[in-house]
Amino acid sequence: MTDIATPPPPTAEEQEQIEKLYSDFDDQHLIPLWTQIGDLMPQTPSPSAVPHVWRWKTLLPLAERAGDLIPVGRGGERRAIALANPGLAGRPYATPTLWAAIQYLGAHEVAPEHRHSQNAFRFVVEGEGVWTVVNGDPVAMRRGDFLLTPGWHFHGHHNETDQPMAWIDGLDIPFVHYADTSFFEFGTENVTDESTPDVSRSERLWGHPGLRPLSGLRDTVSSPIGAYRWEHTDRALADQLDLEAQGFPATVEPGHAAVRYVNPTTGGDVMPTIRAEFHRLARGVQTRTRREVGSSVYQVFEGQGELVLDGEPHAVEKGDMVVVPSWVPFSMSSEHGLDLFRFGDQPIIEKLAFHRTYIEGEDA
Amino acid sequence: MTDIATPPPPTAEEQEQIEKLYSDFDDQHLIPLWTQIGDLMPQTPSPSAVPHVWRWKTLLPLAERAGDLIPVGRGGERRAIALANPGLAGRPYATPTLWAAIQYLGAHEVAPEHRHSQNAFRFVVEGEGVWTVVNGDPVAMRRGDFLLTPGWHFHGHHNETDQPMAWIDGLDIPFVHYADTSFFEFGTENVTDESTPDVSRSERLWGHPGLRPLSGLRDTVSSPIGAYRWEHTDRALADQLDLEAQGFPATVEPGHAAVRYVNPTTGGDVMPTIRAEFHRLARGVQTRTRREVGSSVYQVFEGQGELVLDGEPHAVEKGDMVVVPSWVPFSMSSEHGLDLFRFGDQPIIEKLAFHRTYIEGEDA
Amino acid sequence: MTDIATPPPPTAEEQEQIEKLYSDFDDQHLIPLWTQIGDLMPQTPSPSAVPHVWRWKTLLPLAERAGDLIPVGRGGERRAIALANPGLAGRPYATPTLWAAIQYLGAHEVAPEHRHSQNAFRFVVEGEGVWTVVNGDPVAMRRGDFLLTPGWHFHGHHNETDQPMAWIDGLDIPFVHYADTSFFEFGTENVTDESTPDVSRSERLWGHPGLRPLSGLRDTVSSPIGAYRWEHTDRALADQLDLEAQGFPATVEPGHAAVRYVNPTTGGDVMPTIRAEFHRLARGVQTRTRREVGSSVYQVFEGQGELVLDGEPHAVEKGDMVVVPSWVPFSMSSEHGLDLFRFGDQPIIEKLAFHRTYIEGEDA
Amino acid sequence: MTDIATPPPPTAEEQEQIEKLYSDFDDQHLIPLWTQIGDLMPQTPSPSAVPHVWRWKTLLPLAERAGDLIPVGRGGERRAIALANPGLAGRPYATPTLWAAIQYLGAHEVAPEHRHSQNAFRFVVEGEGVWTVVNGDPVAMRRGDFLLTPGWHFHGHHNETDQPMAWIDGLDIPFVHYADTSFFEFGTENVTDESTPDVSRSERLWGHPGLRPLSGLRDTVSSPIGAYRWEHTDRALADQLDLEAQGFPATVEPGHAAVRYVNPTTGGDVMPTIRAEFHRLARGVQTRTRREVGSSVYQVFEGQGELVLDGEPHAVEKGDMVVVPSWVPFSMSSEHGLDLFRFGDQPIIEKLAFHRTYIEGEDA
Repeated sequence: MTDIATPPPPTAEEQEQIEKLYSDFDDQHLIPLWTQIGDLMPQTPSPSAVPHVWRWKTLLPLAERAGDLIPVGRGGERRAIALANPGLAGRPYATPTLWAAIQYLGAHEVAPEHRHSQNAFRFVVEGEGVWTVVNGDPVAMRRGDFLLTPGWHFHGHHNETDQPMAWIDGLDIPFVHYADTSFFEFGTENVTDESTPDVSRSERLWGHPGLRPLSGLRDTVSSPIGAYRWEHTDRALADQLDLEAQGFPATVEPGHAAVRYVNPTTGGDVMPTIRAEFHRLARGVQTRTRREVGSSVYQVFEGQGELVLDGEPHAVEKGDMVVVPSWVPFSMSSEHGLDLFRFGDQPIIEKLAFHRTYIEGEDA
Repeated sequence: MTDIATPPPPTAEEQEQIEKLYSDFDDQHLIPLWTQIGDLMPQTPSPSAVPHVWRWKTLLPLAERAGDLIPVGRGGERRAIALANPGLAGRPYATPTLWAAIQYLGAHEVAPEHRHSQNAFRFVVEGEGVWTVVNGDPVAMRRGDFLLTPGWHFHGHHNETDQPMAWIDGLDIPFVHYADTSFFEFGTENVTDESTPDVSRSERLWGHPGLRPLSGLRDTVSSPIGAYRWEHTDRALADQLDLEAQGFPATVEPGHAAVRYVNPTTGGDVMPTIRAEFHRLARGVQTRTRREVGSSVYQVFEGQGELVLDGEPHAVEKGDMVVVPSWVPFSMSSEHGLDLFRFGDQPIIEKLAFHRTYIEGEDA
Repeated sequence: MTDIATPPPPTAEEQEQIEKLYSDFDDQHLIPLWTQIGDLMPQTPSPSAVPHVWRWKTLLPLAERAGDLIPVGRGGERRAIALANPGLAGRPYATPTLWAAIQYLGAHEVAPEHRHSQNAFRFVVEGEGVWTVVNGDPVAMRRGDFLLTPGWHFHGHHNETDQPMAWIDGLDIPFVHYADTSFFEFGTENVTDESTPDVSRSERLWGHPGLRPLSGLRDTVSSPIGAYRWEHTDRALADQLDLEAQGFPATVEPGHAAVRYVNPTTGGDVMPTIRAEFHRLARGVQTRTRREVGSSVYQVFEGQGELVLDGEPHAVEKGDMVVVPSWVPFSMSSEHGLDLFRFGDQPIIEKLAFHRTYIEGEDA
Repeated sequence: MTDIATPPPPTAEEQEQIEKLYSDFDDQHLIPLWTQIGDLMPQTPSPSAVPHVWRWKTLLPLAERAGDLIPVGRGGERRAIALANPGLAGRPYATPTLWAAIQYLGAHEVAPEHRHSQNAFRFVVEGEGVWTVVNGDPVAMRRGDFLLTPGWHFHGHHNETDQPMAWIDGLDIPFVHYADTSFFEFGTENVTDESTPDVSRSERLWGHPGLRPLSGLRDTVSSPIGAYRWEHTDRALADQLDLEAQGFPATVEPGHAAVRYVNPTTGGDVMPTIRAEFHRLARGVQTRTRREVGSSVYQVFEGQGELVLDGEPHAVEKGDMVVVPSWVPFSMSSEHGLDLFRFGDQPIIEKLAFHRTYIEGEDA
C-alpha cells in the first residue's frame, strides 16, 4: 500500500513455519489481523449490501399470491415478505441493520397479537381498512400514514373490509438478530380492542402541535404517537415549498422539502434505532449528491423520478423501493415532482458517534 | 427551638462587647449568620409575595384610560401595566421572578421593535387585530392564542384595526433584574414586516404534530413556534376529557385536563425560565390541594369558579388574574366548568434542583 | 433615547388625569412599564452589588472576637460572619445570589447537625483540625481543601484540637431566599460520627481519577465527592504550567492555569447553583480583561497580586476576598505568582441560557 | 406453538403453487417472514457466539512464534492475533461486536502510526517498555494499565527495550464492519514523538480526581484520559473492600468490588461503543448468577478462580480470556481472590434501549 522498504519475502523454510503457525492459530480459534486488515478495516465503508430497486408492480402481485396460499396466524404470525439485499448472502435483510417488507392482509383477516424487542413501523402507500392495535389502542391505517409499534408494545392487525390491504413494514430485525437482543412474547389470538375509530387515542393525547399532556410528562424512548397522518405530512411539505417560493429559508436545498418524524417527548427520532422522514421534490429539481454513513430504504409515494446510486440511474415510480447502503453516493431528480418516504439506521450511527456526511460541493 | 442546655445569657460587660463587635462588623460590611438564620433559612418557603387577585373588569378600564393618555413609542416602548404583588414592596413584580402585565394597543397604533435578554410571551383573553412581528415573522394575535418572543428576538406590535386590543404579557423581568442578566437593544420604529397573514411562518415550519423540518435539526433553547393556537389547545383538552369519559388515562386527576406548551426541538418548556400551561376543569370538579416550590400566575380564560389559596376562597371569572406564591396550598373548583391559562417559574426551580411538590392525600 | 419625533408634552389637564390614573394604578397594585423600563431593563447588566475587597487580616480578628463572645449551638447554628456587599442594602449577601462568610470554630467546639435545601461548601485558607460530618461521613478539613455539603445533606462540624480554626463558607442562601425554595431541618446536637479519619469515605469511593464505583452508577445532581484535596489541585495546576512550558496547550491563557471542581457523575459543576474553580498565575503574568454574566467571589490562597475591577486596581494578599459582580470588567496580575480560589453563580446563568462572555481582544 | 385450531395442511396442488411462489420470491430477492420468524426473532437472545476460554499459556507462545516469523509494519500494521469465537463461522470476532486480540511487539520494534474510526484500547496483563503514541502523546504501558485510542486518533507503538512485550487489544472492529462505518488512514512510519515519559500529557491534564482543566470544557465523545493506571484501580478496589469490611455500602455485592473506567467529561463510558471495568473478588466469594443483554470479554489479571457460563464451570488463572455472549448465565467464584479486567458492548445496547438484566434471586 505504500512504497517504503518492505521486509524480504519469507524463505521456503520460514514459509513452512508460517503455515504451521497459521494451522496452530486455527486449532486455537485464533486469526491474525495482518492477513485480514484490508477487508476488515477499509479506508471508507465498503458495504456488502448493494444498491437495489424492488418494483411495486412486482411486489404486490407476489403478495397477493401469498394471500391466496399462505394463512396468517399463530406461528407464522404475519404475512410479510422481506426485501433480501442481493449482497447479503440470502438473508432477509434490506440492509445490515434494517428489515423492509410488504405485508398483506386479506379481507377480514386478523394477524394475532404479539410483542418483541424489535422496533417496528408501517407505512401505507395505498389502501385502507386495516386497524393496527398497539397496546390496546386501535390505529386506523390509511394512505400516506406512518404508524409506530415501538419495541415491547403488544400489537395485532385486523382488516375490517372486504378488500385486501398491503403496506410496508420496517423493523430493526437484522440489528436485533446481530446484537443478540431479541425478546419475543405471544399475545392474544384476536386483537384486544376491535373498535375502529378514525383516530387513535395516542393521537388524541399527543397529536396536538407543541402541546404535551400533563399526564405524560415522563420522556419515553420511543414516540408515544401511534400514527403520523398524511394530511399533516402533506401540509408541512407544501408549506416548506411555499415559504421557499416567498423567499424564506425552509427547505433542505432548493425545491427539496423534507420532514423528519419525531418523538414529541424529546424532539429526537421516533424509535431508538430507526429514523423516518418524508421528502418532496418540486418539479424539475435535482438534488446534490450525498454520501452518508448508515443505510436507508426509500419508497416512492407518488410521482416519478430518477434516483442515482453510485452513478447508476434508476427510474422509479409509485411504490418502488430502493436501498441505499452506507456511504453510497446518492441523488434524486424529478421532472414532474416526486414524494418519497425514507427510513434508515442513522440513530444507531449517530448515538455511537460514527456519523459523517459528504455533500458534493460542500467542504468535507 | 430545642430544650437542650443553652449557654447563660451574656453579662452586661459581655453585652457591651457584643454590641461593639456588631458595630465593627457593620463598619467592615459584615453581618453575622446567627442573628439572621431564622428569616434567611426558613423551615419551609416563606415568600414575601402574597396570594392576590386582580380583576379583569378593573384592569381593562384602567388600560383604556392609559390608552387615552399615554402615547406608545420609543422610550416607554410599550403601554403595559404590571401587576405589583402587595408583598413585594412596591416593585412591579407579580412574583419574585415573574412579570405579568396587561398591554393595550389602540387602533392603528404601533409599538416599536426592540429586543432584550428577557423572555416574553403574550396570551390573549379577548380580541384580535394585532400582529406581533418576531424576528421579522408577523404573528396574528387572536383569543386563546399563546405567543412567544424568546430572549434576544426582535419584536414589535401593530394594530391593524379600528379597535383597541388588550392582552397579557408574561416575562422574566424580575429574575433578569435580580440576577443582573439584562441586555436590551432598540430596533426599528415600525415593524419590519407589515404583512398580516393568518398564520406565521414559524407555524408553517414547526406547527405540524410530530414533524420536524430537516432545515431545523439544531435544538434551540426556546421554542421555534411563534404561536400556539387556541383551536389546538381547545381540542387537546376536549380530547383528554373525552378519553377520560371513555375510561382511559388522559387527565391529571378526574375532570381536570391540562396541557403544557412545549419546545418541539426538546419536548421541554417553551423558554428557559418560563413554563406555560392550560388547564380545564369539567363541571362540578374540585381539584386536590397542591403545594409546589416556585411561583405561578393564573388567568381565567372562560367560565367561573373558585380558587382556594392558603385556605382562602376567591371567586373568579373571565380575565381575572391570580398569583400563587411558592409553597402556598392551592386548589380549584368549578360548578359549570373553568378554563385557565397558567404560567410559572418552575423551569428555574427544576433546573436548579429545588423542586418539591406536595399533593394532599399523597405520600410526601 | 432616540431623536425621532416625540409626541407633544401633556397639557395641564392631561397631566392631572395622568396623575389620577397613576394613583388609581397604585390603589389596584399596578405599576406602568413606561416609567420604569430604563432601570428594569438596562442595555447591559447594571448590578446593585459593587466590587469590594474584604481583608483577611480584618476578617480573622473579628471572627476571633466572635469566638470569645458568641457561643455556637442550636438556634444560631453556626458562628459564621457574612460578607455584606455595600451595594445590597444591608443584606448579608456577597452578591445577589451568593453567600460568603468566614466561619470560626473554637478548640473542641461542635457546630450541631442540620440540613437545608441550600447548597454549601467550605474552603480552607489556613489551619486544620476540624472534621465536617456530611450524611454521617467524617471529612477532615485542611489547608487548600474544597469541601462539599450539597443541598439536603445533614452536616455538623467538630474541632478536635486545642486551637481554633477558621475557614470560608459559600452558599446559595441569597438565591434560595429570593426564589422561595428554602427547606431546613435540625439534626443531632453532636455529630453522628466522631471518628477522625484522614480521608472521607466519599473520597475512597469517588476520588480515583476516571474510575466510577459500580455501586454508584446513578448520576447525582451534586458531586458525591466530599473533599477535593489540595495535593491534587496543586499538582493539576503545576502540570498545566509545566505542559505549557514544554509547548503544549494546557492553560487558559499564557501563564494562567485553572481547574474547575466537577461532579464525577456528569463532568459538570459540583452543585446545581455553584461553580468552583482554582486559578494560578505564574510570575509576571497579566490576564486579559473579561466580562462575564453572573457574579463571583475570589479568595487569595497564596501569593500577592493585583486585581483590577472596573478599572480600579486592588492589591491583594493571602486570605483577601473580592467580589466581582455581573459584567464588571476584571483582570488579574502578579509579579511573583498568585493562587486564587473562585466560586460563582454561573451554573444558574448557564442553565437559564443567559450566559455571555466578553474577552478583551476577542471578537464578541 | 399454541394449540389453537390451525388451518388444514396445503393440498398437493397448493404445495406446488407455494413452491412456485417461493421460487418467484427468490428470483425477486424476497424472503417470507413466516418461514424464518423463529430463528430471526427468538423469545430470548439466542447468540451464535458461544462461551469460550482462551488460555494465556497457549496465547503467549503463539504470539512469540509470530514475533519470530511475521514482521510488523505498513500493510499488516500490527502483530495482533484475534480470538475467533468458535460460533462465529471463522471470523476473527470474539463476539458479534467485539474484537479481542493479543498484540506482540519485539525488542525495539515499531508499529507504524495510523488512525481509524474503530475505537480501541489496550490492557496490560504483564510486562512493560512499550509506549503507545496517541495523537502525538507518548503513553507508557505497564502491567495493570488500561490505555485508550479512541476512534480517529492517530496512534503507533514502539518498544524501547531489549525484551518483547505482549498485551491485549480490544476494539469494535466487528461492529464497525457490520454497520459499514469504517474509515482508515495511514500515518507516519515511525511514531511522531519518541520521548518516553512516565506519564502522558493526557494524564497530567485529566488525571486529577474531580478536577477539570478550564482549557478542556468541551465534552468529548471519548475519554481524554490516555492511561488509567493500575495504582489507581488497585487502590479503588481495595478501598471498596475495606469500606465494606467497616460496614459501609461500597461493593456491588458482598466481597465483590468493581469500578468502571469512565470519560471524565461526562461520567459515562470511555468510548461510544465499549464499556470497560475491573472486578475484584475477595477470598471465598461466590457472585450471584447474572444474565445481561450484550456481550463481554473477561481477562484474568491475577489470582485463580472459577467462572460458570451457562452452567459450565471453567477454572481460570492469570491471563486467561473468556467470552460471555449475550444473555448467557454467568457467575464467578474464587477461593483465594481473583482480579479480572472486563470489557463489553453494553454502551451500544443501552444507547439503543435494548438493555435488560436478570440477577438470580432478584425480581425480574
